[in-house]
Amino acid sequence: MKCRKCDHKAVINMPQHKLALCKEHYLEWIPEQTQRFIEKYHMFGKADRVLVAVSGGKDSLSLWDILSRLGYQVDGLYIGLGIDEGIGYSAESQRLAEQFAAQHALKLHVVSIPEKYGETIPAMAGRTLRGHDKPCAVCGMAKRHIMNRAAREGGYDVLVTGHNLDDEAAVLFANTMNWLPGYLVRQSPVLEANRPGLVRKAKPLCRLYEREMAAYALLRGIEYIYEECPYSIGSKSLYYKEILDRMEADRPGAKLSFYLTFLQAKENGLFAPGADVEAESIHTCPSCGQPTSAPGLCAFCRTVIKPDQLELIDVH
Amino acid sequence: MKCRKCDHKAVINMPQHKLALCKEHYLEWIPEQTQRFIEKYHMFGKADRVLVAVSGGKDSLSLWDILSRLGYQVDGLYIGLGIDEGIGYSAESQRLAEQFAAQHALKLHVVSIPEKYGETIPAMAGRTLRGHDKPCAVCGMAKRHIMNRAAREGGYDVLVTGHNLDDEAAVLFANTMNWLPGYLVRQSPVLEANRPGLVRKAKPLCRLYEREMAAYALLRGIEYIYEECPYSIGSKSLYYKEILDRMEADRPGAKLSFYLTFLQAKENGLFAPGADVEAESIHTCPSCGQPTSAPGLCAFCRTVIKPDQLELIDVH
Repeated sequence: MKCRKCDHKAVINMPQHKLALCKEHYLEWIPEQTQRFIEKYHMFGKADRVLVAVSGGKDSLSLWDILSRLGYQVDGLYIGLGIDEGIGYSAESQRLAEQFAAQHALKLHVVSIPEKYGETIPAMAGRTLRGHDKPCAVCGMAKRHIMNRAAREGGYDVLVTGHNLDDEAAVLFANTMNWLPGYLVRQSPVLEANRPGLVRKAKPLCRLYEREMAAYALLRGIEYIYEECPYSIGSKSLYYKEILDRMEADRPGAKLSFYLTFLQAKENGLFAPGADVEAESIHTCPSCGQPTSAPGLCAFCRTVIKPDQLELIDVH
Repeated sequence: MKCRKCDHKAVINMPQHKLALCKEHYLEWIPEQTQRFIEKYHMFGKADRVLVAVSGGKDSLSLWDILSRLGYQVDGLYIGLGIDEGIGYSAESQRLAEQFAAQHALKLHVVSIPEKYGETIPAMAGRTLRGHDKPCAVCGMAKRHIMNRAAREGGYDVLVTGHNLDDEAAVLFANTMNWLPGYLVRQSPVLEANRPGLVRKAKPLCRLYEREMAAYALLRGIEYIYEECPYSIGSKSLYYKEILDRMEADRPGAKLSFYLTFLQAKENGLFAPGADVEAESIHTCPSCGQPTSAPGLCAFCRTVIKPDQLELIDVH
């Protein structure tokens, strides 16, 4: 198969786009597409200071690569979770994030949860009901908190994450199978900073398939951590990805169509303005100043603050 | 395994309800459940005249059986589609519908499309773009038209169909995978007669699994047509049913939860009142008086009326 843009041999065929490209044109095409989505969804501009959350995986490192090539002012944030599980998962992913930053002379902030809060994520999860089964809920909450905090404290205009189409479609699928109004109404390529203490968020890769991002990282020679987080095995999210993978195999483009028709329906006013009930009762955590759904400490502060430190905080 | 209600051997185990029942209690349980749903969704009462659309399959015959046992005034409507396909599909389903009516001394209206409109459904579909690939779109449209007409002309208060949970979940799944706002907003156990010329519709079996209905028909000794319509093979609807079957196998109750959380989210106001755009531009067909989405003849009349008869109708 030949490249659509030149006579060279294609390295990737994307039936969902009816497009095959050679290495050179593929490495051009992905940033072009990313730029298109950044503009289409009004994510950020060249004057904005962008912070990219980097996990050491293919999506976030590729996103950092793409944004810096496109000429954005983009620094990285690595959050050390303290996940070892016999494979040195966090150590290796940090090494790869730092290596990428050094190779490209980019600035990387590192926040180590064990150093800053005295506990690894699995240990923190072990103490709480949220992490009863798996540490994923606590981990997600902690990452959201720290990403938001780092972006605010660093004076960044927008925080970006490497969520790809497969991630977004799986989240949408999960939220749809359970009809969770709040999550459905809020899922978007851009989350505005519409609550006090919240930073603006964007997902520039939300329309690119996981497979496309893996091909980009490979062809660009980005070294990334191949392993998925050991705790992700058997997760609901991977389960929904498998179901969507089957539908994609049966009908190329199924995931993209599912995601895009959702965005379109939402833009056309499918959801009632009041459907996001949660958004209407937002409080501010007296400890960290981030938004929370109930009065008092937010879930993150409740989790990380030891009982003997609680009295130091003026909780209303 | 024993029956939950007595000491007899259970004939059916329903893990999604954590319930196993013997034959006697199962044959009580299904009508009790149906009665619960009729009341919960305010479908109809004992004073209403009910018309059940009967296909000769397990769902519609069981529904007729259940409603007459529950003491409702319920007549049947059989629509002859003229589908033969070498297995005498329509002839056999009509025979079974008539046999059931005779055995239970119930009144059955029969409308034969070939006799009344001079053509079978496959022939009618062959003439139109709608039926290019398969006659299913024309068949669905014709059945909706005739059911509505028969219910109105017969002075019935409500038209009921045997759609079961698997049917409803598959339709919802299809409409969700493509985010079709009009269909999402309108899907409901009851469709009010909120447009001129339209009869009220209800689906009393919408919360009962296909498997549960098959067990009911079997245990009640109802003779029904086992074959699916030969044209249904390879349909989108069967495809989505397979996907849902897999999710149900992985998590018993998945289909029910998908459907019920949807109804709940809708009742809680997830969808914007104006999302059903189609509902706002309804016209009346000058030929049959039924509602249609554009001025002029409705799709059914456009399909069945031969070009030389068109001039007899005052089309605006």
